[in-house]
Amino acid sequence: MLARHLAETVLVMIFYYSPGACSLAAHIALHQAGAKFESRKVNLYRGEQTTAEYLAVNAKGRVPALVTEQGILTENSAILAFISQLFPEADLAPINDPFAFAQVQEFNCYLASTVHVAHAHGPRGYRWADTPAALVAMKEKVPQTMTAAFRLIEDELLTGPWVMGEKYSICDIYLYTLSRWLEDDGVDTTLLPRVIEHRNRMQALAQVAEVLQLEGLA
Amino acid sequence: MLARHLAETVLVMIFYYSPGACSLAAHIALHQAGAKFESRKVNLYRGEQTTAEYLAVNAKGRVPALVTEQGILTENSAILAFISQLFPEADLAPINDPFAFAQVQEFNCYLASTVHVAHAHGPRGYRWADTPAALVAMKEKVPQTMTAAFRLIEDELLTGPWVMGEKYSICDIYLYTLSRWLEDDGVDTTLLPRVIEHRNRMQALAQVAEVLQLEGLA
Repeated sequence: MLARHLAETVLVMIFYYSPGACSLAAHIALHQAGAKFESRKVNLYRGEQTTAEYLAVNAKGRVPALVTEQGILTENSAILAFISQLFPEADLAPINDPFAFAQVQEFNCYLASTVHVAHAHGPRGYRWADTPAALVAMKEKVPQTMTAAFRLIEDELLTGPWVMGEKYSICDIYLYTLSRWLEDDGVDTTLLPRVIEHRNRMQALAQVAEVLQLEGLA
Repeated sequence: MLARHLAETVLVMIFYYSPGACSLAAHIALHQAGAKFESRKVNLYRGEQTTAEYLAVNAKGRVPALVTEQGILTENSAILAFISQLFPEADLAPINDPFAFAQVQEFNCYLASTVHVAHAHGPRGYRWADTPAALVAMKEKVPQTMTAAFRLIEDELLTGPWVMGEKYSICDIYLYTLSRWLEDDGVDTTLLPRVIEHRNRMQALAQVAEVLQLEGLA
């Protein structure tokens, strides 16, 4: 109810994020699209995602969340696709070609449901098991699962120079966001020269650097 | 390379599935859309998803995969959205309303990246940990994580009578597919009267029953 009320009265979009979390992808997309939005930091380390106030925005207690005039959206791949459709002049996805658009969604859904999930077994294994030994076992496997996922991206999915080839898209933004976690996840990045080259190319974009500054990451 | 060759020479779409797996969602959507397609069963218990032949179709070794004249698509939420856009007359999603379409994607991405993942820790915990004790600990938590996810669906996300309200969509198809797993996942379905009513409503649709027959599930 509160969530609906918020959505109805909002004038500009409100974007909820946590610095360096997967919400960075939606943050970059909003900034590149030239969207008018206010951003609100959610401190995951202080548990702000589980306060009643935030749960009224996103009952899942996760970031990102985007409050729009039409309602609230969550889930990175949905928000990224929405931004690309709402700001067609930013040309962030092939929104008029159903197959090409589906390929974009395919890549982003892989990041959300396989890559981000593999990563989460390090810091947030408690989601899926309760024993300390299981948490250790999950954490130990993260370098292997993240390496496997990123080798598939390196060898098969990243066309080059951008994920979808010559056209920059929301896939690049999302890939960049997750590839920032590789070192912390214990992945040997010398195995991923194309992914790292892509990450550097993203980091060199002025608008990406601006969002990193906004999130206090640069 | 083989994958590209297959895609270029195909005349009708080829759909790869495993009976009762999450590919059932795309199968129902294709059938309801009136798509012309051939289906190919992938026997996960015999490991057919890891044969060289299948990996040429989907390097991830998962179902579903849809071979189209334009190329191969994987990931349920991407395939479902593609079907809804390719067959607009089937009216399976609000494809001309970016916000409503994003809501559909938001729901389906939640199913893919949270609900399906919670389920997978039962039968496929080896993806995320190697010790037998960790596999047991993950399996033990599945009833709890699946209950929590479906309680959120029951209380917040399932508008009723269909997921998005009065309009049937690809969300209903995907929710139905995953809600078929509740009993095997040890969830007390008496806590989920609206989800179960939705499941029964789906099962009563002639085209759903037809696909269950095609997959040998009815």
